[in-house]
Amino acid sequence: MKPPRTEISTIGEFGLIERIKSGVKTIHASTVLGIDDDAAIIATGTTYTLLSTDMLLEGIHFDLSYMPLQHLGYKSISVNVSDIAAMNGIPRQVTVNLGLSNRFSVEAVDAFYDGIFRACREYKVDLIGGDTTASSSGLVISVSILGEVEKEKVVRRKTAKLNDIICVTGDLGAAYIGLQVLEREKQEFLVNPDMQPQLKGYDYLVGRQLRPEARMDIIYELGELNIVPSSMIDVSDGLASDLMHICKQSGLGANIFEDKLPYDHLTLKTAMEFKLDVITAVMNGGEDYELLFTISQENFDKVKNHRDIHFIGYMQEAEKGINLVTRGDQAIPVTAQGWTHFDPKK
Amino acid sequence: MKPPRTEISTIGEFGLIERIKSGVKTIHASTVLGIDDDAAIIATGTTYTLLSTDMLLEGIHFDLSYMPLQHLGYKSISVNVSDIAAMNGIPRQVTVNLGLSNRFSVEAVDAFYDGIFRACREYKVDLIGGDTTASSSGLVISVSILGEVEKEKVVRRKTAKLNDIICVTGDLGAAYIGLQVLEREKQEFLVNPDMQPQLKGYDYLVGRQLRPEARMDIIYELGELNIVPSSMIDVSDGLASDLMHICKQSGLGANIFEDKLPYDHLTLKTAMEFKLDVITAVMNGGEDYELLFTISQENFDKVKNHRDIHFIGYMQEAEKGINLVTRGDQAIPVTAQGWTHFDPKK
Repeated sequence: MKPPRTEISTIGEFGLIERIKSGVKTIHASTVLGIDDDAAIIATGTTYTLLSTDMLLEGIHFDLSYMPLQHLGYKSISVNVSDIAAMNGIPRQVTVNLGLSNRFSVEAVDAFYDGIFRACREYKVDLIGGDTTASSSGLVISVSILGEVEKEKVVRRKTAKLNDIICVTGDLGAAYIGLQVLEREKQEFLVNPDMQPQLKGYDYLVGRQLRPEARMDIIYELGELNIVPSSMIDVSDGLASDLMHICKQSGLGANIFEDKLPYDHLTLKTAMEFKLDVITAVMNGGEDYELLFTISQENFDKVKNHRDIHFIGYMQEAEKGINLVTRGDQAIPVTAQGWTHFDPKK
Repeated sequence: MKPPRTEISTIGEFGLIERIKSGVKTIHASTVLGIDDDAAIIATGTTYTLLSTDMLLEGIHFDLSYMPLQHLGYKSISVNVSDIAAMNGIPRQVTVNLGLSNRFSVEAVDAFYDGIFRACREYKVDLIGGDTTASSSGLVISVSILGEVEKEKVVRRKTAKLNDIICVTGDLGAAYIGLQVLEREKQEFLVNPDMQPQLKGYDYLVGRQLRPEARMDIIYELGELNIVPSSMIDVSDGLASDLMHICKQSGLGANIFEDKLPYDHLTLKTAMEFKLDVITAVMNGGEDYELLFTISQENFDKVKNHRDIHFIGYMQEAEKGINLVTRGDQAIPVTAQGWTHFDPKK
């Protein structure tokens, strides 16, 4: 008798995480929060220690034909720092596990760590360990990060309140459109290897894809303004998916407004060039590593003139749903695609 | 002009780690110890937090043709707990990153996590997070672990003292010989797929390879006996390599005695069957996950009758070298091979 076989694609990444979570029973009093947010929370002394981890695999998360190793090193730290930022924490220490196949030289490893060290300086984190091993297939990167936050300042996804204002930093969709530019150049290079890549004019988009920054600047500024967001997440899967996490975990709905969504002029221009809808890129593109958070209405005055925080909507009753209100004043229900790495066709 | 290319095999894993370490500058006061031991040490409140991480890659660290997924899940926790044990710490929380290709079903993931949860119960650790992603090649497992230790009880590799007694727990070489048994059965299966694997009588050896246990029992017992080892490491690379870490970092030499080395009768018998030297398996086999530690002479009486701690030698001046003293009273210098994953032939 053949054992039953259920394809992972039928339950998806989030289904898989729910399945794993359902088996977890934590026993230590110091485990304040397990699998449920951007980082786990551990009670250590007078503050909370935050722990998060992210894996980047060649062929899934990056393509070395256009990803320089320095940038890859930098990005592997940024995306982890971003998880600590999303808890309103300060990053402190990282470990880097690296699986290398034989095609990597010592110089290639140096280039990768050059990016790691740059990011460590930028975000003021200490590299304190890791495991370096051979890999029989592609490049494997797994980073874990420790952060710290005062107990009363930790910010969860599940604590947004009715009528809170939904804020997002920076601009969205650029990393996704940047990826399209890189993919096009790769295809043209495969056809004509003598051609030089035509990335001029697209630097901003390509940079957003290859070397994203975690928004620690915003965390420090909110701290100075004495604002603790009521909920927060980083935009890694896409605005739609990440907003849904906040709504579902907070037991609320939300309205966000198309005409408030922030995107760069170049994102719009290039999306049009690729015949892509810029709003789709903003909603579902992902990898922006901006911060999506909610604040109470009384905090609005403190940040209303901030150059880089955009007010895109408000939290509402769960029954009213999660909607994108278009320029034509139509409310379209938001559905998250997020990343569907577990594609049965692959 | 072609950029220079240095093969990683020319500097090896330890050379690579030294190279990475040389670029590290830590800035936080809370970073007590970075890349230098079995785990990093972070000052958090009144105790130390320990952090370690290990990656297991298909085709390098395990072969799914004979590694059941339950055992693999269990082992991926054990090997991390072992690193916390080696610092004299108590494991508390783990995160598990998993990269899965399409050939894995939901049932396969369940089996893997069944092993993870068993190990979490056994070692009393909380699973608090992780990253689950698709992999375009094999199975990728990366585990990070947090532990805790009282500040005055943390044990380093570098603190062995002259004339200290060298102790090792359990028995050595069985995991390596177990691997030979599994490899033989695999080859026979490839020739004749209808044949059932002949593992009967080899259960102990095969179990040591597939489902090693971290020696937390010894850590608790040493605590009860009020013994803090003067140095400690877990035997993952092999006794030779791990003893050399203690010696080099402590600035000392060592004599260990062939007739004191602990190995199981079945390890000897099976080594002979494979025409392998049992002492080589003990010295260089690795993956035993026993504890190698040193104690001061005055602590000897407290443990001399312990059923599972073996006294294999003593620390001496660095000039006298690191030697294996044979039954014939010859001193043979110990050279470490450890794991040479970075094999240029691969």
